[in-house]
Amino acid sequence: MAKRLNRKRGAVAEAKAAAAKLTPRDKKTMTSIVGLAVGVVTAAEKRRDPHVDVPSRTLSNVHYSPRKRILEMGNSTNRRQLFDLSQAKAYMRTMLVASGCKRLLTQGKTTSLRGMFYMLKHTIEGTKENTFDDQNECDTIIEDVEVLLSSLREELHLYADKRGEMVGNIILNDSGDEIDCSRMGSGGYAIPSIVEPEVIKFDPKKCDAKFVLHVEKGTVWQRFNEDKFWRKHGCILTHGAGQPPRGVRRMLHRLHNELKLPIYCVLDNDPWGYYIYSVIKQGSINLAFESERMAIPKAKFIGLSSADPEHYGLPRNVGIKLNDKDIGRAKELLKYRWFQKKPWQDEIKRMLSSGLKYELDALANKDFRYLTKTYLPRKLKEEDWLD
Amino acid sequence: MAKRLNRKRGAVAEAKAAAAKLTPRDKKTMTSIVGLAVGVVTAAEKRRDPHVDVPSRTLSNVHYSPRKRILEMGNSTNRRQLFDLSQAKAYMRTMLVASGCKRLLTQGKTTSLRGMFYMLKHTIEGTKENTFDDQNECDTIIEDVEVLLSSLREELHLYADKRGEMVGNIILNDSGDEIDCSRMGSGGYAIPSIVEPEVIKFDPKKCDAKFVLHVEKGTVWQRFNEDKFWRKHGCILTHGAGQPPRGVRRMLHRLHNELKLPIYCVLDNDPWGYYIYSVIKQGSINLAFESERMAIPKAKFIGLSSADPEHYGLPRNVGIKLNDKDIGRAKELLKYRWFQKKPWQDEIKRMLSSGLKYELDALANKDFRYLTKTYLPRKLKEEDWLD
Repeated sequence: MAKRLNRKRGAVAEAKAAAAKLTPRDKKTMTSIVGLAVGVVTAAEKRRDPHVDVPSRTLSNVHYSPRKRILEMGNSTNRRQLFDLSQAKAYMRTMLVASGCKRLLTQGKTTSLRGMFYMLKHTIEGTKENTFDDQNECDTIIEDVEVLLSSLREELHLYADKRGEMVGNIILNDSGDEIDCSRMGSGGYAIPSIVEPEVIKFDPKKCDAKFVLHVEKGTVWQRFNEDKFWRKHGCILTHGAGQPPRGVRRMLHRLHNELKLPIYCVLDNDPWGYYIYSVIKQGSINLAFESERMAIPKAKFIGLSSADPEHYGLPRNVGIKLNDKDIGRAKELLKYRWFQKKPWQDEIKRMLSSGLKYELDALANKDFRYLTKTYLPRKLKEEDWLD
Repeated sequence: MAKRLNRKRGAVAEAKAAAAKLTPRDKKTMTSIVGLAVGVVTAAEKRRDPHVDVPSRTLSNVHYSPRKRILEMGNSTNRRQLFDLSQAKAYMRTMLVASGCKRLLTQGKTTSLRGMFYMLKHTIEGTKENTFDDQNECDTIIEDVEVLLSSLREELHLYADKRGEMVGNIILNDSGDEIDCSRMGSGGYAIPSIVEPEVIKFDPKKCDAKFVLHVEKGTVWQRFNEDKFWRKHGCILTHGAGQPPRGVRRMLHRLHNELKLPIYCVLDNDPWGYYIYSVIKQGSINLAFESERMAIPKAKFIGLSSADPEHYGLPRNVGIKLNDKDIGRAKELLKYRWFQKKPWQDEIKRMLSSGLKYELDALANKDFRYLTKTYLPRKLKEEDWLD
């Protein structure tokens, strides 16, 4: 008896010690997770069917808010019940992911999406059934748990593969280490997958940048970094290796909102470039629930514009012929609510009628430093961008 | 006349000034490029057909040197002549790429493979013929120029997209900036595409690492970095986002040869993981000419071994079934000269007979820090690796 009591006391003390280590935000997340568990217990005690109402992540539940200028999730939800044969497995998985996240929070550690999948994967006792068979099944439930708890994946201590680098006039703090982005050589600082305030801290006094230049890919970023564009123009230089991962988007969002830096995007002139801009600006359809903390409605599209080949005398033979997929994609973009302004309609239609797309690298045809020495300085000076 | 003389004097002075800025290695590369041009002029003066003999980059010209334990190129070459209709274009392109590289060296700048392609792409005067139509054509010629001049791409001032990060007990110098890899937070230092001694400088006094741990991918690297494995075990931690790009391979090579650090590789247990190890160790068949400065014959394969699931009690249901491609690939690897040692034959055959492959992430099934807290420390202590 005394032994059991001691054990119980031990467990309580341990739980308290763990809770004491939680950051304020972790505590909030933990409260949501515990709330979910309490819901199950309460339902059981009242002899009711345990269920959760998961906000629906379908296209029909996403709308564009013209006031906020971002994509938002609507209010429709799907009920997921334990005592329904078709939903029992999803219900079990939801609880499993939530309990996995609780374990991470308690231990103050993070893991990858893949790590979480393997952590939770096991054969259910007495059956041949696995909790999860492949990672997609787990990833989907993780997104469900994000919307269910209104907690970003990053707040659940989960990270994805990271991409993208950063240099420029800012000193930031990453997990206690001071990172001087103006002294990062040719390699740069690799932007983490989780850049929440518990990990990355800004100090406005340590930021001497006037804006952020976000370029599409690493090779172009290297050109800008080698020419120390960010030093001359007093900015921060980032890239996201194509469609920027969440870490990069959150970093841009925080730089914009907390340090009040305008964000200028320099992307290839093709439908993919427009789409990358659209996701940075309004958020993505798939992950509309995170727009509030990801989207940057004031981000500007500085180039490459379909008007630039003529303005800057780029020969037609460095353009690449649009293929059917490009044309289809461009026509879809023309219908997006946030591309309805005349300059955007002109921009996309001009590409379609020229039949050509252009990569940023194509500017090397004029001179391999044309992009950093002539093109972008002029664009910035003339405020020649799309909004 | 005086004006022309002045102009000539100006040009000579300019060339001298440019040459003065060249690093010793650049001067060597420049000598090779100029030598190529001199060959053309000499041939013309002697009224002979200008030609170059390009070392052949085919499989038949690659052999494994059991003494050096690396892949090497043989001596066979292909003659490329200007006055041969089927070779004239390739000849012209070779000269074009060489002259592009000369321009980069003179200006002390680098560019991407794609930048080089666009820089050289143009329609030949008076024709409808382009110098290059797509980038592959240019990349192939760049590889030709590398072998022709015995200069690595990096020495020709060309970079590719970079991948891979680094943290650990080393302070290095990148382009004049001191990078303390033990203070790089959660993000890490992004390994540049060009890590030649002109860019990255090591100081043995500033390296406090006993070895390099190279892991396959970013998510696993993040696990090791978060647990500060490198601090506890006194090492440098790198990853190459799958098959490591040349920058990462050169970095490992230099750390190994200049700082005498052993290299341990931690890769997924699948044929792809074996292949990554094989390229790090012996070099790749495609680029055998760079083995001397890329391959690390003493690199060790520390895991994941096909013996580990049993040794470490990994449940079979976290394994993934080998598909036909995996099986075919594994059977090919069994025939490689450098996998003939018994432990390697056992390793690969054990995977084939189990019918399963395992990712490093699968160790999270035991505990999400099992990899860093139990598995790897034990592996290192028991010196349980393959050579």
